[in-house]
Amino acid sequence: MRIWVINPNTTQAMTDTIAKCAATVAGPDVIVSGVTSEIGPESIESHYDEALSVPGVLRAVQRGEREGVDGYVIACFGDPGLDAAREVAAGPVIGIAEAAMQAASHLGTGFSIVTTLARTIGQSAHLTERYGMQRFCRGIHACEIPVLDLDTDPNARKVITEACREAIEADHSDAVVLGCAGMADMCGEISAELGVPVVDGVTAATLTVQSLLTMGLRTSKRGEYATPPVKRYLPGVAPAG
Amino acid sequence: MRIWVINPNTTQAMTDTIAKCAATVAGPDVIVSGVTSEIGPESIESHYDEALSVPGVLRAVQRGEREGVDGYVIACFGDPGLDAAREVAAGPVIGIAEAAMQAASHLGTGFSIVTTLARTIGQSAHLTERYGMQRFCRGIHACEIPVLDLDTDPNARKVITEACREAIEADHSDAVVLGCAGMADMCGEISAELGVPVVDGVTAATLTVQSLLTMGLRTSKRGEYATPPVKRYLPGVAPAG
Amino acid sequence: MRIWVINPNTTQAMTDTIAKCAATVAGPDVIVSGVTSEIGPESIESHYDEALSVPGVLRAVQRGEREGVDGYVIACFGDPGLDAAREVAAGPVIGIAEAAMQAASHLGTGFSIVTTLARTIGQSAHLTERYGMQRFCRGIHACEIPVLDLDTDPNARKVITEACREAIEADHSDAVVLGCAGMADMCGEISAELGVPVVDGVTAATLTVQSLLTMGLRTSKRGEYATPPVKRYLPGVAPAG
Amino acid sequence: MRIWVINPNTTQAMTDTIAKCAATVAGPDVIVSGVTSEIGPESIESHYDEALSVPGVLRAVQRGEREGVDGYVIACFGDPGLDAAREVAAGPVIGIAEAAMQAASHLGTGFSIVTTLARTIGQSAHLTERYGMQRFCRGIHACEIPVLDLDTDPNARKVITEACREAIEADHSDAVVLGCAGMADMCGEISAELGVPVVDGVTAATLTVQSLLTMGLRTSKRGEYATPPVKRYLPGVAPAG
Amino acid sequence: MRIWVINPNTTQAMTDTIAKCAATVAGPDVIVSGVTSEIGPESIESHYDEALSVPGVLRAVQRGEREGVDGYVIACFGDPGLDAAREVAAGPVIGIAEAAMQAASHLGTGFSIVTTLARTIGQSAHLTERYGMQRFCRGIHACEIPVLDLDTDPNARKVITEACREAIEADHSDAVVLGCAGMADMCGEISAELGVPVVDGVTAATLTVQSLLTMGLRTSKRGEYATPPVKRYLPGVAPAG
Amino acid sequence: MRIWVINPNTTQAMTDTIAKCAATVAGPDVIVSGVTSEIGPESIESHYDEALSVPGVLRAVQRGEREGVDGYVIACFGDPGLDAAREVAAGPVIGIAEAAMQAASHLGTGFSIVTTLARTIGQSAHLTERYGMQRFCRGIHACEIPVLDLDTDPNARKVITEACREAIEADHSDAVVLGCAGMADMCGEISAELGVPVVDGVTAATLTVQSLLTMGLRTSKRGEYATPPVKRYLPGVAPAG
Repeated sequence: MRIWVINPNTTQAMTDTIAKCAATVAGPDVIVSGVTSEIGPESIESHYDEALSVPGVLRAVQRGEREGVDGYVIACFGDPGLDAAREVAAGPVIGIAEAAMQAASHLGTGFSIVTTLARTIGQSAHLTERYGMQRFCRGIHACEIPVLDLDTDPNARKVITEACREAIEADHSDAVVLGCAGMADMCGEISAELGVPVVDGVTAATLTVQSLLTMGLRTSKRGEYATPPVKRYLPGVAPAG
Repeated sequence: MRIWVINPNTTQAMTDTIAKCAATVAGPDVIVSGVTSEIGPESIESHYDEALSVPGVLRAVQRGEREGVDGYVIACFGDPGLDAAREVAAGPVIGIAEAAMQAASHLGTGFSIVTTLARTIGQSAHLTERYGMQRFCRGIHACEIPVLDLDTDPNARKVITEACREAIEADHSDAVVLGCAGMADMCGEISAELGVPVVDGVTAATLTVQSLLTMGLRTSKRGEYATPPVKRYLPGVAPAG
Repeated sequence: MRIWVINPNTTQAMTDTIAKCAATVAGPDVIVSGVTSEIGPESIESHYDEALSVPGVLRAVQRGEREGVDGYVIACFGDPGLDAAREVAAGPVIGIAEAAMQAASHLGTGFSIVTTLARTIGQSAHLTERYGMQRFCRGIHACEIPVLDLDTDPNARKVITEACREAIEADHSDAVVLGCAGMADMCGEISAELGVPVVDGVTAATLTVQSLLTMGLRTSKRGEYATPPVKRYLPGVAPAG
Repeated sequence: MRIWVINPNTTQAMTDTIAKCAATVAGPDVIVSGVTSEIGPESIESHYDEALSVPGVLRAVQRGEREGVDGYVIACFGDPGLDAAREVAAGPVIGIAEAAMQAASHLGTGFSIVTTLARTIGQSAHLTERYGMQRFCRGIHACEIPVLDLDTDPNARKVITEACREAIEADHSDAVVLGCAGMADMCGEISAELGVPVVDGVTAATLTVQSLLTMGLRTSKRGEYATPPVKRYLPGVAPAG
Repeated sequence: MRIWVINPNTTQAMTDTIAKCAATVAGPDVIVSGVTSEIGPESIESHYDEALSVPGVLRAVQRGEREGVDGYVIACFGDPGLDAAREVAAGPVIGIAEAAMQAASHLGTGFSIVTTLARTIGQSAHLTERYGMQRFCRGIHACEIPVLDLDTDPNARKVITEACREAIEADHSDAVVLGCAGMADMCGEISAELGVPVVDGVTAATLTVQSLLTMGLRTSKRGEYATPPVKRYLPGVAPAG
Repeated sequence: MRIWVINPNTTQAMTDTIAKCAATVAGPDVIVSGVTSEIGPESIESHYDEALSVPGVLRAVQRGEREGVDGYVIACFGDPGLDAAREVAAGPVIGIAEAAMQAASHLGTGFSIVTTLARTIGQSAHLTERYGMQRFCRGIHACEIPVLDLDTDPNARKVITEACREAIEADHSDAVVLGCAGMADMCGEISAELGVPVVDGVTAATLTVQSLLTMGLRTSKRGEYATPPVKRYLPGVAPAG
């Protein structure tokens, strides 16, 4: 069973972290590979960044289809390109936001999301609605650490841990969802510190793909996720077919 | 890793089917056991049945806690006693309805539920709301086969398959959720017949428990799911502590 | 006209208070009786307690049906067993939460609920949704007095009154709903103190049952509340029929 | 205890029917009077009619306040002027739509509304939302009999009964709400014919006012329903004070 | 193209301000006239006031129809009589609340409303729901300046500007909607001061009417806004026909 | 005042039609230009197509910003790239779906959308939710004519007109929204045929941009639509700054 964890930004170091986290949880018969997007922004912190990350995500999925990959994780908390990727892929495609929120919905009656920059809160809120998770999400909070500083800022973990602590107090939450793939390796530590479950979407999404594949479930091609019609594209973008 | 799949009704044959399905998908390091409720109704087809099945579910979870069980599946599509079981258990407790609906939400943009008797449609509808799955569920349909006839009625599979076919047509759905634990072993066949993903909650819930345990996630004891206060109970019901 | 006010916990003193309040408002041709549950917890402060109170509620309704009772009040703010009781009873069955919230919805544009322990807030919130009262309910607040201390704690009334005052300020509410049957006799006093309507569910539910009976309205047996199918139950629980 | 049942249209015959129905259910210590609006339309079948009926309703309430009336029913299914009347009155004011829908919400899990002309369906739908009753209302249907023909058309009862029958079939409902005060006296007959509860708002609202008064509950003057500020009005409309 | 901007209260000075603002934005081929209601309250600050303003609005629209007016603005933030006016008018009728909120929905992801008295907040909230704008409206705030003091109170602009500043901070909004026609001429100043878009409904509604007329769009007479049936009205109110 | 109407697909003939419609309604002081996307698909009929059209839309807006364009219309009914374009542009950016639905919301109480292929219905449904227009949209229907055949298929108008007729019957709607920019020039004809308002988004959006500019309203740069942070992009995509 082969699963690709696609990093929608172009920063290889982040892919490495993500892939390592994903591999830790995957079953013995699963080969997890991290894939870095080849086009687009080095990090995703705006609608503009997100929009421009999607062609790279789709190109990665198309390559995966040619290579016989069984399922995909889109490892950015905005779940960029999810619908389009499902049209292109035969197997399951899971975003880390949907997987993390669904996992958290089983652990308590309300969770808080702690994300990077405040300007991305709107997109997280949109996703809580899209996935029906509004009723579980009690608040979305920013730690105001840019994505690419998560790894290099020596205070990052402490700042994020404090943001999580304040979030569960303010929201009367009983769990936390980390709102960025770049935080994937912080879960255990923050959870130990705060005494509540802390969910990372990279591992959650990897296990969701693995579970769907184990059950023999693939993307439905009957309706909206049918393979897109082949057509002419202006330079540089390959057709889906 | 030990997971108990609790059958909330008292029919052992149904437990056997359920346990077999669950074991098929569980990972190599997971021991899955089917547990039949010791008190309550032989099948669950009304609010009355469901209410009276809950003490048996809770008694099973309490026994599991004493025996060091890691997580639980409640294997009836009404997810009876889910909140109370989460208060009692330290590890994750997952209902088959929530797991099945969440799985289906990844495979298309809208699913249909096919359940047993029409009088249970209301409870399924209630659960779609509770889990935020209303936006994915396009219809709930009854095949009007009583739970205990699923195994014995020679036409059951055919009737259910036709009900699924009609449901996806009527609802413009692209996936099906089977609305009874007793249908757990019919997924593959119906899916092959209809060409759309068909989701069974028993396997979905088992893998959800396994995934949460793999990620080290347990029920939050900070809020509503904290251990219930110990108190005096009148005859026959053991306290939670 | 005979109405039973069922106390879902096993504490007789609480039944006495409830029955007295109910009798105060009932019409001259109405016989109101308080009935204490014979099995289950001494008070209801968790999902676990609530789940284990339901069999006792249903047993009481079944006894009432045999004795020709016309209608029932379930006198615990979680409205435990409401759906199942409606399946069993021919006449109307009303929970105190639904009755209190509906009454309050006529008196202003938004009410606050003041309940006992914070861990029960979730269940009250669930009921506001179930009854369509979310749009009227502006907040749910706990006074953190356990149910059985309501009667004995000399400061209870004062603490609850202050909780009500803070609730209407914080929520910009114009009415209060008391979130526990054990507070039934405090309405008048708190309302006089705060200058806003304060609603108790026990009296509200008793009058709702009385009103429905006066109009000749009984539980519909056409749909989801039809009498449950008779079936085999393991020890100690009588069938519904 | 004095309750005025205000007919918002100017047709005395309709007031007579309404008042008779209300009196049938009121308690022995309650004096129910029918009051016909003195200005406005002879029947209410459009937003225009409804808007122009409101000044007459308010004038009636103002007269009632001067005469010491305890509570009011607004006896038109559009509940015209409800908010404004609550600002003017000290005691409770109840619309027949809200009372009927709340009553029906206790009797089953979903009701159908059967009203007069199709062009009023929108207003009924608006009220189901306003009162939080959308989740109980499964459909709104018109019998296309004008309000003033309800009494004179010899086929009216039969046509309405058939409309009710079709509604519960089409909507899978288990109760019916009659959507016009002019249908108040048809409940029993239709219910007997169809075997489901049929709710009339006039009796329901009268009993709701009576119940609120019995509990000592009056309109909150703390918030949005505070007495309106006195001000200058151009000819013919008396100030509220 | 002739557009009437109807002031639903009877204060001519306010009509003058409103008409001036409307004229500023209207296209070269548009004749905008301010029309003062001839009956009703001098200002609208309660449900009572609003209810009694509606007959004057409808009378103005009826006069406009006789004079061949093409479209109407209802220039009070409660949008009084909107549905009824649409039944009466052939051309478009737009309320300033709906127009302002729709305009603001294009400029950011969430706006705050700043209105006059706190007691009108409920009506604004109702309108955000009616128009589907709840998801854009992050808060409604009162400056507690009565409508008729907006023009005369020398501190009005400063107080309102501060209320807007506090609103966008508290609500994390990125735009402001002014919640009273009497604030129509303050937009530019407040926007310049705060650095966010500030929307006035009078200009927004005037341009919405003008745009609809430019596109040849008029009120649909197929459904709920069909011309109301002619009927007998008691003294002083002319029939619609 | 300069407005660019951006065609997100690469088909120049479609741009020509769109630009012509837009120019017809624009005011005398407005210069409207049609702009064809330089990269991406020739038509947009899937999530995949839509995702790949966004970079071209953003590139067009960036060019417009350099040339001092005042506002933009995104002329595809999926409103592709709207959030990102608002981050990039200083002036207003309007999608044709939002403009059309808002216009239709003024003309009746419920509209139907008639679009091209059934597989795009999901995206239209998503937009009705995003814009708060779900309460006005009663149905979304496909005519199953591919986008590029709208111009060439001799039966297109007839087929679409019939689809509109069936939609308003089935949905009990009183207005129609055309769900594709390629239908922009069919409004008048279909409206004349069916006797209900038919709204095209291209003209509606052009007039919305014009109206916002006339009021001096521009995209708020305070919150989510602030200029995106400058960062490194891999080949071929220019940074936003």
